[in-house]
Amino acid sequence: MNIDMIRAAASRIKGHARRTPILTSPFLDDIAGRRLFVKAECLQHTGSFKFRGGWSAVSSLTDNELKTGVIAFSSGNHAQGVALAAREHGAPAVIVMPSDAPAIKIENTRALGAEVVLYDRQTEDRDEIGTRLAQERGLTLIKPFDNPLVIAGQGTTGLEIAEDMNALGVTDADVVVCCGGGGLTSGIALALAADAPGLRVRPAEPEEFDDVTRSLISGKIESNARLGGSLCDAIITQQPGDLTFPIMLEHCGPGVVVTEDECLRAMALAFERLKIVVEPGGAAALAAALFHPEAFAGDAIVAVATGGNVDAPVFAKALATQANG
Amino acid sequence: MNIDMIRAAASRIKGHARRTPILTSPFLDDIAGRRLFVKAECLQHTGSFKFRGGWSAVSSLTDNELKTGVIAFSSGNHAQGVALAAREHGAPAVIVMPSDAPAIKIENTRALGAEVVLYDRQTEDRDEIGTRLAQERGLTLIKPFDNPLVIAGQGTTGLEIAEDMNALGVTDADVVVCCGGGGLTSGIALALAADAPGLRVRPAEPEEFDDVTRSLISGKIESNARLGGSLCDAIITQQPGDLTFPIMLEHCGPGVVVTEDECLRAMALAFERLKIVVEPGGAAALAAALFHPEAFAGDAIVAVATGGNVDAPVFAKALATQANG
Repeated sequence: MNIDMIRAAASRIKGHARRTPILTSPFLDDIAGRRLFVKAECLQHTGSFKFRGGWSAVSSLTDNELKTGVIAFSSGNHAQGVALAAREHGAPAVIVMPSDAPAIKIENTRALGAEVVLYDRQTEDRDEIGTRLAQERGLTLIKPFDNPLVIAGQGTTGLEIAEDMNALGVTDADVVVCCGGGGLTSGIALALAADAPGLRVRPAEPEEFDDVTRSLISGKIESNARLGGSLCDAIITQQPGDLTFPIMLEHCGPGVVVTEDECLRAMALAFERLKIVVEPGGAAALAAALFHPEAFAGDAIVAVATGGNVDAPVFAKALATQANG
Repeated sequence: MNIDMIRAAASRIKGHARRTPILTSPFLDDIAGRRLFVKAECLQHTGSFKFRGGWSAVSSLTDNELKTGVIAFSSGNHAQGVALAAREHGAPAVIVMPSDAPAIKIENTRALGAEVVLYDRQTEDRDEIGTRLAQERGLTLIKPFDNPLVIAGQGTTGLEIAEDMNALGVTDADVVVCCGGGGLTSGIALALAADAPGLRVRPAEPEEFDDVTRSLISGKIESNARLGGSLCDAIITQQPGDLTFPIMLEHCGPGVVVTEDECLRAMALAFERLKIVVEPGGAAALAAALFHPEAFAGDAIVAVATGGNVDAPVFAKALATQANG
């Protein structure tokens, strides 16, 4: 896993993934107490950065592999990213999703032409289901984060951040990334180490799902006790990946842990000040930047808003935090 | 008023206004029955395209004029655009706003450092108030649309649309623009006539505030009977401008009239499929593209989402239209 793989992914993705904008607001700068740049990856195709990794992996398959098809397991964003990438390559896609994923993510995955297989997050093992289906049907398994091609695809986000921050003259900043299994976090970390070495990645996680934060402290892979039941469904992976963790251990600063309520409040501020729709798990980095200023040094932060696939009732709940002050 | 003024405005704006992205969704293409490109001007600084015109006008002032300050009258988006442009130029700003403007717009304008003067839209004449204050204090009046520098600034949106559509190979399309006094509509029309002559501007207006649509039919300036009380507060100007109307008459196709409910439903779809926040008046063009497909020919539409400054309760009302089907 190295920077050349990320640059190769960037070549394959060019013209297919969207180059998402960096957004700012003087009102958010005031709250954060420093300049705050938001990489709006919720504006990516399928509403999250996952399309990058999906395209990177699918675009690397042989014609025969494309014809047989791909399989992925995902709480929803990876599902949609892989489903759309597969459809645009003419490949069948099977997606294994937890039955408690937001309805919009399940519906969208089906609407993008994929076959959806549901499982119970509390009692069934998605890895086992995915691996078995892959073997039975000869499908190529595209893991959500512990896959070099997926990490490379997510890392293209980091190349763009490096280019944009260099153009703005921002050469010293923390880059806060919403972190589940660490595919995006490790990919961005590798990209920044190469192209913007003054920018340091800081993983952001929700309370009770802070496996990466604890793993970075102990120096070994730690797991979460809980497996589900969080509004931040996009980033509640049980533990960091075997591929992603060593990269994060080498390149990332300490993790930052936020509450669900802070994520909802960050969503409301993104609505009010940036005019973007962010889902709870996709707002963890913004929440860290806005509500944990003490966790950061320096006068600039980049926060990656990783996804926007949120059901209307949850979004309404986030907006209600605004009314309450 | 000509294309050179728009190109000059583009030079002054470069590095200050945001180059907003064109967003797409296969789900919206299905509803519109053709390829739909959304120019997300709600992501512009201050949440609407008005920052372009504000910057264009303020950046053309002399040092003495900047020192004395500027005045603008606006339902809110022009107010914020001028206020931020003035602040970044170190110029004082007085903004005359209707007392029924959304609270967020009034608050933001104050927070951007402007002095806000409120008036009653039903009984007072904002032009009279603005002109009197300008004379009393020696302020430079920046009209919201009937000002060549403002039209030139808004027209930079059209240069970007032309460049992006040419790059995509889309040379024949309707470009639907939410239309109040016609500053943005006429500016985009001039830009497209120069740089993408196969793209035709189509003004979109809410029911009962369709002055431009009727004026284009009769060939002379027509007025609205009602002066306020619409959710589409951003675009309920009484009649087209003396400068903007002749440009629209020469360059624009027929207007398209949408209902408030269609605007709310378009907001919900922009939330769900594009992950952007659009205000009711800013959703009129998207509503036209999605719900009035019979009004357009050809296989591609560009809809400009002109602004996103909407209070949370109105946004929640828009999301509720989704739940109702």
